[in-house]
Amino acid sequence: MPTQWFAEEKVLKDPIHDWIYIKDPLIWNLINTRAFQRLRRIKQLGTSYLVFHGSEHSRLTHSLGTYETMRKLLSHFHRNHGWPDEERVEKLALCAALLHDIGHGPFSHSFETAFQTHHENWTQRILMEDSEVNGILRSVDEQFPQDVAGIIAKDSKYPLLVQIISSQLDVDRMDYLLRDAFNTGVIYGKYELERLIRVMRPYENDIVIKSSGIHTVEQYVLARYFMYTQVYLHHKTVGSDLLLRSVMLRAKALFGKGLLQYHPVELVPFFSKRESDIQVSEYLSLDESIMLHAFQRWRSESDPILADLASRFLDRRLFASVACDKQTEDSLQEMRDAFQATGLDPHYYLIYQEIATGGFLYKEGIRVIDEQGMLREIHEVSHLINSLVPEIRYRLYYPKDAITADGEFASLYDRLQQLKTGN
Amino acid sequence: MPTQWFAEEKVLKDPIHDWIYIKDPLIWNLINTRAFQRLRRIKQLGTSYLVFHGSEHSRLTHSLGTYETMRKLLSHFHRNHGWPDEERVEKLALCAALLHDIGHGPFSHSFETAFQTHHENWTQRILMEDSEVNGILRSVDEQFPQDVAGIIAKDSKYPLLVQIISSQLDVDRMDYLLRDAFNTGVIYGKYELERLIRVMRPYENDIVIKSSGIHTVEQYVLARYFMYTQVYLHHKTVGSDLLLRSVMLRAKALFGKGLLQYHPVELVPFFSKRESDIQVSEYLSLDESIMLHAFQRWRSESDPILADLASRFLDRRLFASVACDKQTEDSLQEMRDAFQATGLDPHYYLIYQEIATGGFLYKEGIRVIDEQGMLREIHEVSHLINSLVPEIRYRLYYPKDAITADGEFASLYDRLQQLKTGN
Amino acid sequence: MPTQWFAEEKVLKDPIHDWIYIKDPLIWNLINTRAFQRLRRIKQLGTSYLVFHGSEHSRLTHSLGTYETMRKLLSHFHRNHGWPDEERVEKLALCAALLHDIGHGPFSHSFETAFQTHHENWTQRILMEDSEVNGILRSVDEQFPQDVAGIIAKDSKYPLLVQIISSQLDVDRMDYLLRDAFNTGVIYGKYELERLIRVMRPYENDIVIKSSGIHTVEQYVLARYFMYTQVYLHHKTVGSDLLLRSVMLRAKALFGKGLLQYHPVELVPFFSKRESDIQVSEYLSLDESIMLHAFQRWRSESDPILADLASRFLDRRLFASVACDKQTEDSLQEMRDAFQATGLDPHYYLIYQEIATGGFLYKEGIRVIDEQGMLREIHEVSHLINSLVPEIRYRLYYPKDAITADGEFASLYDRLQQLKTGN
Amino acid sequence: MPTQWFAEEKVLKDPIHDWIYIKDPLIWNLINTRAFQRLRRIKQLGTSYLVFHGSEHSRLTHSLGTYETMRKLLSHFHRNHGWPDEERVEKLALCAALLHDIGHGPFSHSFETAFQTHHENWTQRILMEDSEVNGILRSVDEQFPQDVAGIIAKDSKYPLLVQIISSQLDVDRMDYLLRDAFNTGVIYGKYELERLIRVMRPYENDIVIKSSGIHTVEQYVLARYFMYTQVYLHHKTVGSDLLLRSVMLRAKALFGKGLLQYHPVELVPFFSKRESDIQVSEYLSLDESIMLHAFQRWRSESDPILADLASRFLDRRLFASVACDKQTEDSLQEMRDAFQATGLDPHYYLIYQEIATGGFLYKEGIRVIDEQGMLREIHEVSHLINSLVPEIRYRLYYPKDAITADGEFASLYDRLQQLKTGN
Repeated sequence: MPTQWFAEEKVLKDPIHDWIYIKDPLIWNLINTRAFQRLRRIKQLGTSYLVFHGSEHSRLTHSLGTYETMRKLLSHFHRNHGWPDEERVEKLALCAALLHDIGHGPFSHSFETAFQTHHENWTQRILMEDSEVNGILRSVDEQFPQDVAGIIAKDSKYPLLVQIISSQLDVDRMDYLLRDAFNTGVIYGKYELERLIRVMRPYENDIVIKSSGIHTVEQYVLARYFMYTQVYLHHKTVGSDLLLRSVMLRAKALFGKGLLQYHPVELVPFFSKRESDIQVSEYLSLDESIMLHAFQRWRSESDPILADLASRFLDRRLFASVACDKQTEDSLQEMRDAFQATGLDPHYYLIYQEIATGGFLYKEGIRVIDEQGMLREIHEVSHLINSLVPEIRYRLYYPKDAITADGEFASLYDRLQQLKTGN
Repeated sequence: MPTQWFAEEKVLKDPIHDWIYIKDPLIWNLINTRAFQRLRRIKQLGTSYLVFHGSEHSRLTHSLGTYETMRKLLSHFHRNHGWPDEERVEKLALCAALLHDIGHGPFSHSFETAFQTHHENWTQRILMEDSEVNGILRSVDEQFPQDVAGIIAKDSKYPLLVQIISSQLDVDRMDYLLRDAFNTGVIYGKYELERLIRVMRPYENDIVIKSSGIHTVEQYVLARYFMYTQVYLHHKTVGSDLLLRSVMLRAKALFGKGLLQYHPVELVPFFSKRESDIQVSEYLSLDESIMLHAFQRWRSESDPILADLASRFLDRRLFASVACDKQTEDSLQEMRDAFQATGLDPHYYLIYQEIATGGFLYKEGIRVIDEQGMLREIHEVSHLINSLVPEIRYRLYYPKDAITADGEFASLYDRLQQLKTGN
Repeated sequence: MPTQWFAEEKVLKDPIHDWIYIKDPLIWNLINTRAFQRLRRIKQLGTSYLVFHGSEHSRLTHSLGTYETMRKLLSHFHRNHGWPDEERVEKLALCAALLHDIGHGPFSHSFETAFQTHHENWTQRILMEDSEVNGILRSVDEQFPQDVAGIIAKDSKYPLLVQIISSQLDVDRMDYLLRDAFNTGVIYGKYELERLIRVMRPYENDIVIKSSGIHTVEQYVLARYFMYTQVYLHHKTVGSDLLLRSVMLRAKALFGKGLLQYHPVELVPFFSKRESDIQVSEYLSLDESIMLHAFQRWRSESDPILADLASRFLDRRLFASVACDKQTEDSLQEMRDAFQATGLDPHYYLIYQEIATGGFLYKEGIRVIDEQGMLREIHEVSHLINSLVPEIRYRLYYPKDAITADGEFASLYDRLQQLKTGN
Repeated sequence: MPTQWFAEEKVLKDPIHDWIYIKDPLIWNLINTRAFQRLRRIKQLGTSYLVFHGSEHSRLTHSLGTYETMRKLLSHFHRNHGWPDEERVEKLALCAALLHDIGHGPFSHSFETAFQTHHENWTQRILMEDSEVNGILRSVDEQFPQDVAGIIAKDSKYPLLVQIISSQLDVDRMDYLLRDAFNTGVIYGKYELERLIRVMRPYENDIVIKSSGIHTVEQYVLARYFMYTQVYLHHKTVGSDLLLRSVMLRAKALFGKGLLQYHPVELVPFFSKRESDIQVSEYLSLDESIMLHAFQRWRSESDPILADLASRFLDRRLFASVACDKQTEDSLQEMRDAFQATGLDPHYYLIYQEIATGGFLYKEGIRVIDEQGMLREIHEVSHLINSLVPEIRYRLYYPKDAITADGEFASLYDRLQQLKTGN
């Protein structure tokens, strides 16, 4: 019997990569930390599940997938390009991929806006201050945690690893496009992962693309384009986020005035302290189950605004919206006054929003190498990618059910109808 | 411009059925109730996500899928067999499919065991007593809610609808096999849905199978077999459920003695009342976010057992297990004493469990009709299905990390090792 | 027992559409004609299987798929837009979809170039002159065959049907993109068929797109872009076609001089007559099996050029190629002379080819309707589609194995190396 | 620039394995032989495409896939079990996988029955006698061709390689189940390839299965069960084969009497010589294009039987069939006489056929190893596999269109109707 009998790779079944392979106990131990397991209680796509009901997957699944994408990429690079040639570099790469999102909080972007936190800070602090995670990383060597943190923070003496973790073409995006497409049920996010990996190669401190791979990269960039325009920035998802933000802002305002009845201990630091004064252990005790429980309690707060907003969010009575334009901003004050007059606080109920659908499309950052070794930016060699322009859409969000055609909201109703038909 | 412009079917994107089609505002209104939206906060597969990380999907997604499967089946029956020929029957079928799981609570089976509730009861009560759901159903006619409830309860003057909702071959199973397979990433649960629908036909008060469809049904029955043996009853998932049950039983015991520090109002009725005394509104306020929040608080209960069990569950330090046999039961008392002696309460930490992997395989219930119109049970015409026998596995669950090879647990450790190697 | 028992839809299992549904015996009868069954012996993608080995599917499978796509589209239009409202129009649409490619010959484009035939002519003639096909169509009414032929020829009083069969957004392309992607194993050709159908609507004599469907159309247009640039116009596939054309041109030249030893009766009309003098029955007796048999015989023709070319094609010793530019054309004569000098006839062995990768991208032809009913061309509302520009690539094809670095081909070899490195 | 730039693995795009990786020029050279390329002109599933129109894939695609499955399996074995530890063994395994089907002729089984050839013989002869293939293999060492041939012939000093190429659980079946399922569009043939590979391990001279992999093997065995019963032995496919055999037998009989007008040189050896007298080069010149061309010519043979049979096959007017039983054999002579009386030669037109749907299911041959190292046959540990019993179906095939309810065939018609209804 070969001795490998007890030394087989551990595997996890994954709907995107089929299997996730783990050979290194270091990775296994990191997965089994409290900080990492917490990611099961944070959804990858925030409120998107209210629009695409399938997108209920957690940040844990994406973190495992980012690790596996890195593992595949390194295996290809090692086999065909002789890099990495050091085990420590491989470990750094795998740990950074696994842990790159460990600092995310509940409903990431809305929460960050409402409470002015930054998940990037928390990732750094967890790696350095959480004794469990830091201890496991330090088992490699004293410098190891700092090196992993540096790679994620893009401040590192391993610029190639920085590129692979976080750039226009990184293992983070490579996993989430496929995973989010899979779970929502759309096909927009699909591209040929294995082929993309094959056309990438390490070149000095960068990843470059073999020129025969231009169309493969186009496909990947378009996957991003479609996922952003069709899924991530779907106007109803934006509306769900705005509603969620209103809930949190109202609760915070009430807490500030001593008027919030239910305020679980886990939330108090975020209502009362600056980000830098919050402890890592306080941050790690927060997750979406606590938020959702709070929202349920807030249904019966004596403040009618919070009670209404929380019920709306839980029962999916989302804000409606109309497409408008930049000029709408000018007439906004007037509409806000009308809202105020009818008793609907416009701060929470009337939200004018710019949605930059192309904001994610940087023209620079992916370089192509031709057979003569010449390097060019992808947009110089791809008309398609060059054509992608940032579009800005403007929408006005409001509670459709409250603004009815007759009664006190009649003129507001007319005003919004006019926006809709463009008159 | 055709008038249908504003009268198009509403659609929801779904990863299993591609699109879910909704023509009837009745269905749309039911989806938008608080009771139905609550299902987003209850996972379809309970603790299974701790073993198959992808299975994070909620009961809401499965309920929508069951509706859509029913819609497809009725469309086929109507087109090819002229049934249903009444709109009211169609509405009954669609509503029953959509609402069949509305009474599920958090972590369904473990919760039900610990608190002795029954989701079937709650489904009935929600349909009849929740004013929002009941009111929408009653908008069809006064008798309608009772008729939907009767179909789900299998006590109905519409026996054919009962068959389609809940039998060996029903739209519930037809959706969840595909959905659970998809989310876990396994292929076991796949079968040919469209073909299965085509070989089914209404016959008197039953659904029968055209004889050319025997192999299609075999495929479906085997999908069940594989999903049960490989996924639903995976020994680690069973262990997760047992750990969860220990958490809840310990909390309940402490509450009974007035020793539970954190006991959210939502849980109190379940700690203190009999099922029949709990209000529908109390039941509906419960979901998994409240449970998970409680578990987090219980990490720091002064009771060390609850604190330990809750941490284990949240941080995924699951119970280990060894395969054993029926005889193990005889020596169980001795091991329990040993646990007790070392300070580990065996009531929570040493669990002997029978796992009936084939308990779901009823030999009867799917009938095949041949070209001469003769009816036979599927197991009479399929060797394969006839061969499926209920297997019972026995396992002993315990906290592996606590039982170490040396120190006070040494002899217990040896005892468990012996079980493992069969000596 | 419902009477539909014996009147169920016929179905064919299909890897793209899962099932193809046939209710109308008219369609069934057309499928079972000799002319239609002949399409099994003609590959959908010509010589593409020499590059993507999976693309071995026939024109018959695509014709069935085009029919099914039409059936789905009509079902959607009928359900949501009340059109078509006449059974005869539905029959016209289904027949035209099924038969649109019936005039294709073996290795379509290469054969047409070598023998100056036009499959469009033959489709018309088969519909009107083949007694079997014509007879089945005439069973509807006397005018029916002519009406089907007119729709396919784009000369019809049913302009909407013409649009659906043959336009920028037609059921032909809708099927082949998915089918070709599936068989080659690439994902480029995938787009959301069901969603595309849902955003299409009949409008006057045209198909227009609902404005919320712009990104769905973008996805479809990009599927075309990727399939053309990556698969259909892959430089090796172009080379296979050129090699095939050389085989056929050489055989034709030899036949003209009475020097072709093997010339099966099926090929003689094509060697000796003008297209218009060829009989329908002669045309229908030709397929790829006859061509492949001929190529095998030609391996041992006494003419060394034909023998070499035929062996190359059968044994997949394809022409190599170098990327070049428009200027290369100027120095072509010189290289041709060098070929001639070494005994390689440049007419067959040195081929300069323009490949217009964007030639398929018409800017016009898909109109979008917004909520106010205003119509615009898709490229006016989509930056992405507007950016697609026809690219022209230039390549020089030659037999790599014949042009070796030393010996008599040395200077030719050097010349081609220079082209390659751009000096 | 790393030196691997020009030394990357060659890849082929494949719809089943995504990519097929080729590192060894030996493999590349074998693929590019005339004998291997010939497999493009032989369909993997014979006449199955007349029933499942998608199954048009060739033996070449399956041969590439078998190679790739072997490559994956060896990579897993090498990584986890340290075998193979010699490069020559790896080369033997890869070559045997690639070439295992190289001796197949057109429409394999029907042709073999009609002409009494055996593809196994031809595989051996091609490896040893075809100068191109043999020469490439001999480039490894003198003994190499014989060793590859021995592995395929199951007469080898490498028993483990024999097991992997040809046993109950071999790379041949592992590829074709997936590939045939994919192309026909059914899902029956799917199983978890990657997981199956992971539970296999080399053990002495055999492959054994880890006991946790029993259900994975069950899934694979059931994939075979379903593919055989639903696809490979579909009664219409059996009918297509019988019709094809009738075509060939009739042509052979006519040739024997000097009455066959069209008899291409490629076929003459098969009409006139014993298998052992046929040359390898003669065998290799045969493929399905030659057969199909012959069938087309035979449409207009003066022998009405051959003309009819050939037209039926090409235009897909297949034989119909009725289920019957073993007793039918007794009354067969009477029906044959009736056929003869009406002028239909029963030798070609009335065929009684046993179809052994379970003949492929050997109870023995897959061994499971448990944690204590004990070995058992799979059927001893799997009820499901143990339950699979060989079924025999009996059918009577005849030309439905010729046997009409009135006229001279009336009583035959009645006789067949009686069989159908079981009277």
